[in-house]
Amino acid sequence: MNVRMLQRFKKIKDVTSSVLSVFSVETNHLHTYPNFTKNTFDVDRGPYRSLEEHHLTYFRDVLGENGLVVDLCDLEKYNVDFMKHLRGGSTLVLRPTATEQVSKILSFCNHHHLAVCTQGGNTGICGGATPIFDEIILSMELMNKIIHLDELSSVLTCEAGCVLENLDHYLNERNLMMPIDLGAKGSCHIGGNISTNAGGIRLYRYGNLQGNILGLEVVKANGEILNCMNTLKKDNTGFHLKHLFIGSEGTLGIITKAAIQCVPKPKSVKLLFLGAQNFTKILKAFNKARHDLGEIISAVEVMDHQTMEMVEEYTDLSSPIGRYPIYLIIETSGSDETHDEEKLNRYFESCMDKHFILNGVVASSTTQIQKLWSIREKIAESFYKDGYVFSYDISLPLPSYYDFVTEMRHYMGEKSHRVFGFGHLGDGNLHLQISVKEFSKEILDYIEPHIYKRVEELKGSISAEHGIGFLKRKYLPMIKSSVNISTMRNLKNLMDPKGILNPYKVL
Amino acid sequence: MNVRMLQRFKKIKDVTSSVLSVFSVETNHLHTYPNFTKNTFDVDRGPYRSLEEHHLTYFRDVLGENGLVVDLCDLEKYNVDFMKHLRGGSTLVLRPTATEQVSKILSFCNHHHLAVCTQGGNTGICGGATPIFDEIILSMELMNKIIHLDELSSVLTCEAGCVLENLDHYLNERNLMMPIDLGAKGSCHIGGNISTNAGGIRLYRYGNLQGNILGLEVVKANGEILNCMNTLKKDNTGFHLKHLFIGSEGTLGIITKAAIQCVPKPKSVKLLFLGAQNFTKILKAFNKARHDLGEIISAVEVMDHQTMEMVEEYTDLSSPIGRYPIYLIIETSGSDETHDEEKLNRYFESCMDKHFILNGVVASSTTQIQKLWSIREKIAESFYKDGYVFSYDISLPLPSYYDFVTEMRHYMGEKSHRVFGFGHLGDGNLHLQISVKEFSKEILDYIEPHIYKRVEELKGSISAEHGIGFLKRKYLPMIKSSVNISTMRNLKNLMDPKGILNPYKVL
Repeated sequence: MNVRMLQRFKKIKDVTSSVLSVFSVETNHLHTYPNFTKNTFDVDRGPYRSLEEHHLTYFRDVLGENGLVVDLCDLEKYNVDFMKHLRGGSTLVLRPTATEQVSKILSFCNHHHLAVCTQGGNTGICGGATPIFDEIILSMELMNKIIHLDELSSVLTCEAGCVLENLDHYLNERNLMMPIDLGAKGSCHIGGNISTNAGGIRLYRYGNLQGNILGLEVVKANGEILNCMNTLKKDNTGFHLKHLFIGSEGTLGIITKAAIQCVPKPKSVKLLFLGAQNFTKILKAFNKARHDLGEIISAVEVMDHQTMEMVEEYTDLSSPIGRYPIYLIIETSGSDETHDEEKLNRYFESCMDKHFILNGVVASSTTQIQKLWSIREKIAESFYKDGYVFSYDISLPLPSYYDFVTEMRHYMGEKSHRVFGFGHLGDGNLHLQISVKEFSKEILDYIEPHIYKRVEELKGSISAEHGIGFLKRKYLPMIKSSVNISTMRNLKNLMDPKGILNPYKVL
Repeated sequence: MNVRMLQRFKKIKDVTSSVLSVFSVETNHLHTYPNFTKNTFDVDRGPYRSLEEHHLTYFRDVLGENGLVVDLCDLEKYNVDFMKHLRGGSTLVLRPTATEQVSKILSFCNHHHLAVCTQGGNTGICGGATPIFDEIILSMELMNKIIHLDELSSVLTCEAGCVLENLDHYLNERNLMMPIDLGAKGSCHIGGNISTNAGGIRLYRYGNLQGNILGLEVVKANGEILNCMNTLKKDNTGFHLKHLFIGSEGTLGIITKAAIQCVPKPKSVKLLFLGAQNFTKILKAFNKARHDLGEIISAVEVMDHQTMEMVEEYTDLSSPIGRYPIYLIIETSGSDETHDEEKLNRYFESCMDKHFILNGVVASSTTQIQKLWSIREKIAESFYKDGYVFSYDISLPLPSYYDFVTEMRHYMGEKSHRVFGFGHLGDGNLHLQISVKEFSKEILDYIEPHIYKRVEELKGSISAEHGIGFLKRKYLPMIKSSVNISTMRNLKNLMDPKGILNPYKVL
């Protein structure tokens, strides 16, 4: 995520030079903001009404004075996205504290044809959570209460504005943890996670949110409250309406509460760092791990030697096992340390015997594990120093996973400085990076139509876990059939006939 | 499932005496069929056109002669449900072999306003898969091809008519298995499993189909083919349309293909059979197992002493540990037999030390395991001998799980012979059984309004894994809000405006 943030931030400066300086009265500091999205991108404002004084009066009645943010300086943090790439021109943030308030707000906005952009932690990187024009921002930040934890069934019920890390801390104290973990956990809201069907590093082990979200409470565009707050693992009574809202990025309804299936906190965590001859061997080692270590694997990461080379160049870190063409990192989480260590050692030796890997190390102590993980974590800040980096977060079927990096390296030839790949191998999620001396429109045009076309041909996904938001919506017709798109449009028209919910996003 | 089948079969004989004898020309045998559903239940035929000769001509053109079943005797097995409770009067079964044929059929039916009932293995027990009047039966039985297995990512792609057990056998030979397992696996289709969001015994470990189905191909009511055949673990590009069809029982579209995330076949399976003083202790033991055995647990079942007493009365089986108020069965599946056994023994001893359990046995050999499982499996055939049994498949939050059995025992008083409970504790799924000397309408009326009301009050589910189908649709308004039901109706109208898909079901 940081990778993309830095890259995008550079890009917007390079391409558009559309940076605005704003003096904050409150902090006496000069902030640098991107230009308004409406000026940077080719987008027309929808036929929504503009905010009038009597609207504000209504919202004050519903929320009280503290529920509104109208100060221009205070508004900026809601108007500008996490990537500092987009900037909306909203003049009002509403901060409800209860579902009934959300219901009243939407009912009013729907009636008066006022556009609404729902915002969680504002950590999205596709622009799904910031307004494009003057949409009213509906911030969920005050709806942050934990409602109930059923420790026996490990089901947590909470409001949508709870920060992911807070939920995890709360659970950790009770020997449980969230089934999802993200880099942005310190800021992102669980409601935003669900709205974007967020992935993250625990997905390999604990599955996706589509499997782990048991229930939702949602407010529809017309203000109706849809109660799907099931807290049961098995409930087959009618259409599973909650799935309309998981991953639809706030365009079909606003999630106000969630019931989440949590998982036990592991007692033992270990890390295996392996070097191999090529990606074919990595896949063999991974496949063997799935059978030998199956139930204890909690993360499977890969990085190529170009990535390691770059980390070694720009940090004081180095490979713990010397240089190899490609590296595999396997983390395990289990309930018995001795057993896990035995399994890992045996797996390691067997991989060596079968020549799947050339070398490796097992880390057992927290310090050792953290040191090895830091190599993976430092990739982002390393390639920031490697010139201008075009960064792609894609999913690919495993047989094509690394071939695609090689293919792109060949395709780029001398046009790039470095083409490197790393990512969540266990989920088929590749971070493909292309570093060049400096940004140019020619190189962008050389890469982008080609890369998305190839991902599509390989039956991959152009957005593994980040959604479509505002920034990727132009690619949707490239990857979805007309039947899919018309079905989505019909669904949007059904759930939000006036199109007030998060306009200019997804579709 | 067998339990309910027997009970329902008895019920229909007792209540309505609506059994019809049919002489089969082909087999020279007299078969006993239930009366037509339209005569037994208060239901009106929808405004659909009846089948005409020119329709048959069209279907013959599309499918060829072998694609149609029109012989009255051959039609019966499609017209009568698994429970022998319902009987439709369809005069035509269509058996497509390709998605394009399904598309042509639906396009034609939609245009001519002909109702369609899609049928998989016809093993459902809520009547979702059999016609009510003269709907055309669209049998998926010839669309049974395995399309592809990506062994590296364990993703299986197949047609909807594949029998679950066949898929599991195919995977077993490749050291993999399906993430779902059901009693009806020898007949049920994966398409039907998905359409009903089926649960089963592997759900505790591997999660639900909402998490494990990666992609679907679906034909819409108007014949359009909706391609959501993603085979990736992570793909966040637009609305997740596949979820419209998981669990909507064939009323929103017809599933023709699926991509399924499969799981490694475990190397070691073990069983723990425990006796405890009461359900509170059982919950403590279960909670401890979740932390101590976490990653290797593959099934968590419970049964009370009334259930065991009945099994001992009607079979030659007996408790392996003597009599206790309540029993807990934990199955583990792991990648190392020694480790699993060590964990189990340690867990067992600790539960004894803490007085969570009073006694127990660990089974390690396949024979021992099978013998212990047979106690659980023989429950159904035992209570068939225990008079007339009212059987309920419900989900309850764990704190209320067994209290509800006690409460119902108290409520029934001397009206019942035995009130007993067993089920998938790990999923909060209870099988509550009430045996009486013989069926009476008075007892039914005494139980049924009360039991559903109480399940609703306790925030449980009246259908844990069996869906709504035809038989439970009258209870939907009792358990869903008017906003939920109107949203479902709107969704139905959007996806199938003429209502040709599986009418009289769910809504």
